[in-house]
Amino acid sequence: MKKISVAYQGEPGSFSEQAVRLYFGAKAQAKSMRTFTDAFAYAARHGDAFALLPIENSVYGSIHQVYDLLLKHRLFIVGEVKLRIELNMLALPGVRMNQIRTVYSQAQALGQCETFLNALPHIRIETFHDTAAAARLIREEGRTDAAAIASASAARVHGLSIVRSNVESNKRNYTRFLVLSQKSHIPVRASKTSFAFAVKDIPGALFKAIAVFTLREINLLKIESRPYPGKPWQYLFYVDVEGSSNRSPLAEAMGHLKEVCTFVKVLGSYKPFGMR
Amino acid sequence: MKKISVAYQGEPGSFSEQAVRLYFGAKAQAKSMRTFTDAFAYAARHGDAFALLPIENSVYGSIHQVYDLLLKHRLFIVGEVKLRIELNMLALPGVRMNQIRTVYSQAQALGQCETFLNALPHIRIETFHDTAAAARLIREEGRTDAAAIASASAARVHGLSIVRSNVESNKRNYTRFLVLSQKSHIPVRASKTSFAFAVKDIPGALFKAIAVFTLREINLLKIESRPYPGKPWQYLFYVDVEGSSNRSPLAEAMGHLKEVCTFVKVLGSYKPFGMR
Repeated sequence: MKKISVAYQGEPGSFSEQAVRLYFGAKAQAKSMRTFTDAFAYAARHGDAFALLPIENSVYGSIHQVYDLLLKHRLFIVGEVKLRIELNMLALPGVRMNQIRTVYSQAQALGQCETFLNALPHIRIETFHDTAAAARLIREEGRTDAAAIASASAARVHGLSIVRSNVESNKRNYTRFLVLSQKSHIPVRASKTSFAFAVKDIPGALFKAIAVFTLREINLLKIESRPYPGKPWQYLFYVDVEGSSNRSPLAEAMGHLKEVCTFVKVLGSYKPFGMR
Repeated sequence: MKKISVAYQGEPGSFSEQAVRLYFGAKAQAKSMRTFTDAFAYAARHGDAFALLPIENSVYGSIHQVYDLLLKHRLFIVGEVKLRIELNMLALPGVRMNQIRTVYSQAQALGQCETFLNALPHIRIETFHDTAAAARLIREEGRTDAAAIASASAARVHGLSIVRSNVESNKRNYTRFLVLSQKSHIPVRASKTSFAFAVKDIPGALFKAIAVFTLREINLLKIESRPYPGKPWQYLFYVDVEGSSNRSPLAEAMGHLKEVCTFVKVLGSYKPFGMR
């Protein structure tokens, strides 16, 4: 089976790596990268490779750094995948709950497990920079008195057992990842399009831009203005709509949008995420 | 001088604590809290106290957790402050650049210093959960072979020297903080209002909501739709506009907005940030 190289940010056992496996399955050759920029550069250098990066989380919002990279570099969105952030308490095999004195995890992950952790007041909580790295720490230091809060996939990667599963309070914590490629191929069944636009700093400019879609009964799926320092209203928007940029009525809408905007960039048309 | 208690998330020397001092000056009695929830709870318990929490960063976007808390609890926005995220390389006094073998900081802060760090290939980079805590580590462990990337205020708190100042690549990295109080007092010169609204899942609903402001020539300063798992288009929006909710034309616009929305919540009217 031919492998597909997919660059992601983080280390094996991270949620990003899990998203790579969810989207590409067994064909994936997941390539761990230190930064988003490195993952972008990898996909830009290798014609057949992809990058898979988080773009928004239902609890923590959009990841503007990835939007910045999309505007700066020539990679196209060719797919998306949503992953529920399920957190588990992981320890070395054989370690029981009552042996655990310290829990390591990343700050946001610890925040997601507040209810669970508040019921364990005797356990010390230590913030770590990354969930998968916390799991790695338990294994590397052979800690029988500590646990990590991380994904089930981090347990597999580092040979840990799940002491308690699904310890996150919010069962609706999802991260949406984008699949990026050098090649701007639009799938036949593409029905979602992402783009960025900027409008002039005059009253009603956003109203006109949205009218472009409303007049054609095109559904907006997301709209976000980007805050810029110094310029309180920079008028840069990130938008997701229904439809494909190469088919009616969105093709005409994108033409119309260019008439009322100072800048328009289509980031990609792709199949919206469904359970795979 | 009567002190004003202000709860913030993080530890002394953090950017949040710096924002407390920037906004409240010498009157501030900054209260370090472990989580956003704890800071909210503190201001909710103490009638005269405030909470100061980050709401958006120009590079990393909105902090949806704080929006969630604003929707859930009865605290009002009574002010805002913007802080430029200036990063410095800090070490124990007397330590020179060529002695430094390791740099500790939080992942996003390290990412902000990529250009600076790439020019120092012999230095090992270690991710830490917090910038101020990285500075504390250097002091507590008496490390003469290591540095932290953190704020100048972290240097003061932990008695470190600035080896290199302003090592961040992006000089336009700002965090906007909200000042929150139990009391919904609207300042006389309030000219910015924040609110949340939800619209029905029908085409054109957002168009109508924005028309409410366009028809009255009220400037939008920010608009953001909130992604919700399961419901791809939940129609919850966070909006900032010019004007005060108790004065014309915004008072009428808010009434009109209620006609076209399923849910409207004013989060506060306040003076927009200016240099203080």
